[in-house]
Amino acid sequence: MHVPGLTQARVVQIERDILSKNDGYAAENRARFAAAGTFALNFVSSPGSGKTTLLVKAITDLKDQHPIAVIEGDQQTANDAERIRATGAPAIQINTGKGCHLDAHMVGHALEQLPPMQGGLLFIENVGNLVCPAAFDLGEAHKVAVLSITEGEDKPLKYPHMFAASDLLLLNKIDLLPHLDFDLAATIEYARRVNPKIEVLTVSAKTGEGMPAFYAWIAKRAAAARAAATAAE
Amino acid sequence: MHVPGLTQARVVQIERDILSKNDGYAAENRARFAAAGTFALNFVSSPGSGKTTLLVKAITDLKDQHPIAVIEGDQQTANDAERIRATGAPAIQINTGKGCHLDAHMVGHALEQLPPMQGGLLFIENVGNLVCPAAFDLGEAHKVAVLSITEGEDKPLKYPHMFAASDLLLLNKIDLLPHLDFDLAATIEYARRVNPKIEVLTVSAKTGEGMPAFYAWIAKRAAAARAAATAAE
Repeated sequence: MHVPGLTQARVVQIERDILSKNDGYAAENRARFAAAGTFALNFVSSPGSGKTTLLVKAITDLKDQHPIAVIEGDQQTANDAERIRATGAPAIQINTGKGCHLDAHMVGHALEQLPPMQGGLLFIENVGNLVCPAAFDLGEAHKVAVLSITEGEDKPLKYPHMFAASDLLLLNKIDLLPHLDFDLAATIEYARRVNPKIEVLTVSAKTGEGMPAFYAWIAKRAAAARAAATAAE
Repeated sequence: MHVPGLTQARVVQIERDILSKNDGYAAENRARFAAAGTFALNFVSSPGSGKTTLLVKAITDLKDQHPIAVIEGDQQTANDAERIRATGAPAIQINTGKGCHLDAHMVGHALEQLPPMQGGLLFIENVGNLVCPAAFDLGEAHKVAVLSITEGEDKPLKYPHMFAASDLLLLNKIDLLPHLDFDLAATIEYARRVNPKIEVLTVSAKTGEGMPAFYAWIAKRAAAARAAATAAE
């Protein structure tokens, strides 16, 4: 769309400046995570895919092994942070107002309010949105896309940037499979078409089915991240 | 976030200019709809709420009574337009690329490719996103929010702008209610908290349950829109 007083080239330049500025903040967050041995994951999905339920389940199962903290992004409400805090884990809620994603600057400010977490896990739950969060690096080790199987098979093809930016796809609410016409194999094929390297796990945050494989993925990737950080010292 | 070379006031001004320019195009679309007696609805929701299945069902049931056309918005693929065309209705697919919503300018271009539809219905299916489409008027008579009951109760509170901007809320996939822990009354209460005037219908696009009430809503609102247009002549 034409914007008065701005050429199209200038609009593209502004977008590039915003992303470049974000990348600077993301690099700062990443350096902070490396220094503290924190393994950070950025959870992205549609609204209502079950991210918070998944995090509550993971924290409950893993909190005796690691310090865990959570940063929650939503347009409004502190509902999700309150659900997280009920597990005993610290959580910071960021409200984005009219904004459609977290950015690295917001995350940097939230980090200042969290306790030190040497060797811990940081879960960042982004605003529910399959478009905007794809372009914004928050400094995380990996983006994890969560797709509820109630959303249908074609989401990776229709929102390819998000699935291309993610290293793991969690197909959630697998307990509902008997009640849906859902083609699991087709969904995985579509995800691999936009991202041949994406790993895929099927889970139910509600029943716990498949969650141990997700925890094993976290352990393996966190160990790899720490080994890489040690080698870089 | 700070953007190099732009003050915060300038960023706000640019956003205002974009919305003002959009509103100009939306007014043109609205005048075109009024002149043709077209009743246009803008369907907004999360990805995977079942909008396309809902439109296919509605077109199948209503196409003998009205000319119907569809404009489809997605980041990528023409999947949805193809599903619509299988009903016999004309459909134009708009791919937004990295964009997170349709705008009135895109819709104006799509209208040029559709046949004239004197006294017809135009269904616009927006990009699946509970944030960005809220601010963009496309010239429609009403925004219709579709919420799958698999997404949980709290979406109206967490994405209030979308539910405030919508005149009708369709709670879809009601056939799954026996398999979910879903509080229908709480969801309706939350929607009315952000928008006291919103009308709410429960439907299953898959089984057809509740769809006649949606068709009655369309007939009533379309008649009211035509009466208002006649009175304005």
